[in-house]
Amino acid sequence: MRAIVKAAPGPGLEVRDVPKPRCGPSDVLIRVHHAGVCGTDLHIADWDEWAAGRIKPPLVLGHEFAGEVVETGSAVGSTFERGQLVTAEGHIVCGRCRQCRTGNGHICRRTSIIGVDQDGAFAEYHAMPATNVVRLDGIPTEIGAVMDPMGNAFHAVLTAEVSDAVVLVLGCGPIGCFAVGVARAAGARAVVAVDVKPKRLALARTMGAARALHAKQDDVDAAVMELTGGDGADVVCEMSGAAHALHAALRLVRNGGRVQLLGIPRDAVPINLSAEIIFKGITIYGVIGRRMYETWHQMQRYLTSGRFDPRPVITHRFPLERIEDALAAIRDGDAGKVVLSIGP
Amino acid sequence: MRAIVKAAPGPGLEVRDVPKPRCGPSDVLIRVHHAGVCGTDLHIADWDEWAAGRIKPPLVLGHEFAGEVVETGSAVGSTFERGQLVTAEGHIVCGRCRQCRTGNGHICRRTSIIGVDQDGAFAEYHAMPATNVVRLDGIPTEIGAVMDPMGNAFHAVLTAEVSDAVVLVLGCGPIGCFAVGVARAAGARAVVAVDVKPKRLALARTMGAARALHAKQDDVDAAVMELTGGDGADVVCEMSGAAHALHAALRLVRNGGRVQLLGIPRDAVPINLSAEIIFKGITIYGVIGRRMYETWHQMQRYLTSGRFDPRPVITHRFPLERIEDALAAIRDGDAGKVVLSIGP
Amino acid sequence: MRAIVKAAPGPGLEVRDVPKPRCGPSDVLIRVHHAGVCGTDLHIADWDEWAAGRIKPPLVLGHEFAGEVVETGSAVGSTFERGQLVTAEGHIVCGRCRQCRTGNGHICRRTSIIGVDQDGAFAEYHAMPATNVVRLDGIPTEIGAVMDPMGNAFHAVLTAEVSDAVVLVLGCGPIGCFAVGVARAAGARAVVAVDVKPKRLALARTMGAARALHAKQDDVDAAVMELTGGDGADVVCEMSGAAHALHAALRLVRNGGRVQLLGIPRDAVPINLSAEIIFKGITIYGVIGRRMYETWHQMQRYLTSGRFDPRPVITHRFPLERIEDALAAIRDGDAGKVVLSIGP
Amino acid sequence: MRAIVKAAPGPGLEVRDVPKPRCGPSDVLIRVHHAGVCGTDLHIADWDEWAAGRIKPPLVLGHEFAGEVVETGSAVGSTFERGQLVTAEGHIVCGRCRQCRTGNGHICRRTSIIGVDQDGAFAEYHAMPATNVVRLDGIPTEIGAVMDPMGNAFHAVLTAEVSDAVVLVLGCGPIGCFAVGVARAAGARAVVAVDVKPKRLALARTMGAARALHAKQDDVDAAVMELTGGDGADVVCEMSGAAHALHAALRLVRNGGRVQLLGIPRDAVPINLSAEIIFKGITIYGVIGRRMYETWHQMQRYLTSGRFDPRPVITHRFPLERIEDALAAIRDGDAGKVVLSIGP
Repeated sequence: MRAIVKAAPGPGLEVRDVPKPRCGPSDVLIRVHHAGVCGTDLHIADWDEWAAGRIKPPLVLGHEFAGEVVETGSAVGSTFERGQLVTAEGHIVCGRCRQCRTGNGHICRRTSIIGVDQDGAFAEYHAMPATNVVRLDGIPTEIGAVMDPMGNAFHAVLTAEVSDAVVLVLGCGPIGCFAVGVARAAGARAVVAVDVKPKRLALARTMGAARALHAKQDDVDAAVMELTGGDGADVVCEMSGAAHALHAALRLVRNGGRVQLLGIPRDAVPINLSAEIIFKGITIYGVIGRRMYETWHQMQRYLTSGRFDPRPVITHRFPLERIEDALAAIRDGDAGKVVLSIGP
Repeated sequence: MRAIVKAAPGPGLEVRDVPKPRCGPSDVLIRVHHAGVCGTDLHIADWDEWAAGRIKPPLVLGHEFAGEVVETGSAVGSTFERGQLVTAEGHIVCGRCRQCRTGNGHICRRTSIIGVDQDGAFAEYHAMPATNVVRLDGIPTEIGAVMDPMGNAFHAVLTAEVSDAVVLVLGCGPIGCFAVGVARAAGARAVVAVDVKPKRLALARTMGAARALHAKQDDVDAAVMELTGGDGADVVCEMSGAAHALHAALRLVRNGGRVQLLGIPRDAVPINLSAEIIFKGITIYGVIGRRMYETWHQMQRYLTSGRFDPRPVITHRFPLERIEDALAAIRDGDAGKVVLSIGP
Repeated sequence: MRAIVKAAPGPGLEVRDVPKPRCGPSDVLIRVHHAGVCGTDLHIADWDEWAAGRIKPPLVLGHEFAGEVVETGSAVGSTFERGQLVTAEGHIVCGRCRQCRTGNGHICRRTSIIGVDQDGAFAEYHAMPATNVVRLDGIPTEIGAVMDPMGNAFHAVLTAEVSDAVVLVLGCGPIGCFAVGVARAAGARAVVAVDVKPKRLALARTMGAARALHAKQDDVDAAVMELTGGDGADVVCEMSGAAHALHAALRLVRNGGRVQLLGIPRDAVPINLSAEIIFKGITIYGVIGRRMYETWHQMQRYLTSGRFDPRPVITHRFPLERIEDALAAIRDGDAGKVVLSIGP
Repeated sequence: MRAIVKAAPGPGLEVRDVPKPRCGPSDVLIRVHHAGVCGTDLHIADWDEWAAGRIKPPLVLGHEFAGEVVETGSAVGSTFERGQLVTAEGHIVCGRCRQCRTGNGHICRRTSIIGVDQDGAFAEYHAMPATNVVRLDGIPTEIGAVMDPMGNAFHAVLTAEVSDAVVLVLGCGPIGCFAVGVARAAGARAVVAVDVKPKRLALARTMGAARALHAKQDDVDAAVMELTGGDGADVVCEMSGAAHALHAALRLVRNGGRVQLLGIPRDAVPINLSAEIIFKGITIYGVIGRRMYETWHQMQRYLTSGRFDPRPVITHRFPLERIEDALAAIRDGDAGKVVLSIGP
């Protein structure tokens, strides 16, 4: 079958034939229809420091995907059947530690990520443990293919109290734009979105931001304070990974508010603990992955009820063979979500 | 009346006569019996950078105290009566903002602290708004005088889920030692305490620490991992303000665990957000003051039920006139809580 | 001044002159503009068993009102000033017990209710303790006058997890209709409202109910199960006080769901604890009053942000002198909220 | 193999030979060492109305057990290996609904209970789905065999806020006695236990009850009010199933407190919703089974840390063949937990 492969250490990717994966007794074999391309894939393609330290080529890339069940293992039972459309959680966890057994698999210490630590889903077929597979129940596979990053946004927004809150979203990449929409659907009073790219700000507006502000050209502090009577935002989602955005998050959250951290800064960020955290009495939460599987059920409900429409965030579509164009769109910095069409 | 006064900008304190405070219509006038001396008082005495920026002399110092009601204002009603023993919350808040009206006065934006922003309680008499006064109901005034810092410990410990938790306390000053005892009383599985001063480690052991370890001479990481099967501590209370302790807190907390920040580092601390916070899925909480008045009611119940005994933490006692000796004991670094005897 | 008075034991009310209340040192004197009429007022007018046991005539009725500050007591400070428009929490609580001091004044054991246990606000002027007074900050007094029952609805809805929930509201009186609107604004997936009066069902539809069903003529069970894939409603607000509605609440809530009880049945209701509560693993919560003052702050934010519009629920308006017509409208069973115009 | 069997509809049990169960691909086959006898087993033996409506003979009884792994299915992986000592959750759930996938399997709508809906563990061997099997990691099998009912107690106690709480336990059968011990270990201020059997009261005292009171001979109300300053108990665990105990629970819980319902009354209980629930602002929670698998992990930690010792509750031990004696001990009403020795 065709697949996108990191063949050897160093920059670059190849589209080539690899063996079709085998369906183990606890697995579901999926014919991939669509797959999402992520910044992580770009890091692997470009072979940055992180990639060089973690990736063991050869490796099939891809951790965001959706498709059709074509085979189920002997121990899978009746949950899945041929022809069903499904997506999957890409973090494969141990399933037996306290975290896994109490709905907290996202922080399992034995996590292996598809497309990073083992072969992934930028391929015609992919085999997943049945425990990781999630039925789409009417959600199209193009949307199913981006439920992994969308899940990060749901995780970030719904672990804060956003009902009636003024929510500040820093960074309007795909996850930030998803977060804007989720916050609106979850009853936020107003969402303020901040970025430096006009196209992304336009997208944030489309997703429901009351204010979409340029980090350098607009007075973000004044806008937040005006909306909140000088208190500051109830919830801040830091999704940019920029050091100055982190400081803005800590400065603009109200006393007693909550900062959800998702963006990954390149370097360590010096933080003034007393002024930025302690004296404000705030809570900071590290958002990793998606809660297994609370977040997935939340997504299914929001999507099938029509209260959250992620489609505007998908801005680019390419066939599998054009992975380089897909990566270029991400590099450009203006893209929303970039999706590969793989399936029939 | 006699009082301890910062008379003018610059180092040094004076014990001198000042006018007895007037009891306003909403106030309770208290004859001070005991008062606790805090690191903050040392900063003010020594006139460090923080003190020079905030303190407006002349100022009566002292924010931790307990004593006897001698007069109540005309609008105070029947809650308090002459002769009752009381202590008080030293943060005077606006009382009308959303935070104040929902049990979150500790993060009111209009907080004024006695002994810092207005005259304090290192004096024979002190007038407090009745809303801030708390009845001791059998708790001795010597203990009542240290309920302010003890409240920081209760706030830190009881806003985490410590039942059955392995709790790591970094820094065994008075608040850290209180935290050890509170965590034990609240059902912690085991408390590991860390410091560099042998006397403080001995005190932590007295307060119930299962392990009291020297930060430099003992293998703290190994001890925590052994106690937790390699997972890390469920809850970490960072009460030292040392940068390396902050990194230890973030390294030794388990995935999904909680770090309570109370110690104030002198400088900004560079934090690797991805490895130290985000990928671990942890929660960080800034502990400021005491929850008004949830924390005070918790203290009253723990103290009167006998499930928590703070007395070993009080290691030094001096009369008002010997404030310099009291400050010297704190400077020494070996002291637990230092208390002034003021009352009759 | 003119006031509506229960002059003596037995049925009937009088509109007559009574002395204008004095403004105590901790009080705010309010010129009443509007007041809401409640089922409780009807019970007092009709002198039913409950009223005969609790009310001590002579008594000025009325616990829902809003108006203008005309005087503030000497100990009130600067929170309120002449000319401000305000409403007030009608439960006067002790202010010093653990419940009162931790944001739970709604369950203070020493509660006295205006218009029930002491003179109320169906009068030209009313004096309230300043702690109970809430600024309207732009909310009209006609709406301010119904924030007391609206607060019951906010309390009921916002102490459940309604984000993304299917919410079932049983009973579409004024509080039920408010609850429909609050649930929608707070991010409910769908609200199903049930009553037996067509006008009330129409009102529930106006407030945002996806389905407004007749308890006897429509198949409520089928509708709830269809909307929830056979699981049952996530949250049920029982606001009718009818025994069969209570059983419907317990039958139609999903396993693990939550039932908010507010409607007061006349008699004891036999409950099958195992089938209706225990084996379903549900939570039941008794809704009394409004959380002091969390609920009031929530209302202010929802109302001023425009995300919740209570105006359709106010269906009848009468001058003070026409209290009998106001009571008749309530007796009729078709009314939403009935408001008295008192002010200038 | 030998097993205890309900052979046909009607009273009575048989000890006879049945085929050894097959180990399916996702199963673990367990050599049973010990098994707990439950009131449910008595109902089945006596063939009461409930049993006649639910049980389909022939059926092997028993849902509480522990033993040794003797075989693992082909899809089970490396979590379990021969010779390990294990127990198991006896509720077999669907594993794919929202509840199952978010740590709430105890309220799965497709639950099948071993020993009730399918063959159970009063036998020399029992095969369980691997997902239900829990490693004992040093806990003896006699204790492992009673972790199912002990888990009900943990579930009841740890879903309330018992730290510093006055906890009232009504009914001192085995689950009630376990609850007393769990509440103590979890930091309760004081536990008051109530029953009518002196031996059970003595057992509650052994497990840590501060007061063990006779429901008819002692003044329970006075004792609770004295301990709580007239407020009432913070948490009540109703574990008797007696109607008058339910009313005591609702009367003696403080305003805003929490009642955990576990005891199953025979008939419907008339409840005065306004006085007993609504005006008190309380929360009621139905305790069904054990949270999967949060409760099991909590038990492992409490048991292995030595903070909770359940051994005094096990008062009777019999070999498999003496099941009638075991049932007689339960019928007698004085027994704690009755355990069958089955294994080698």
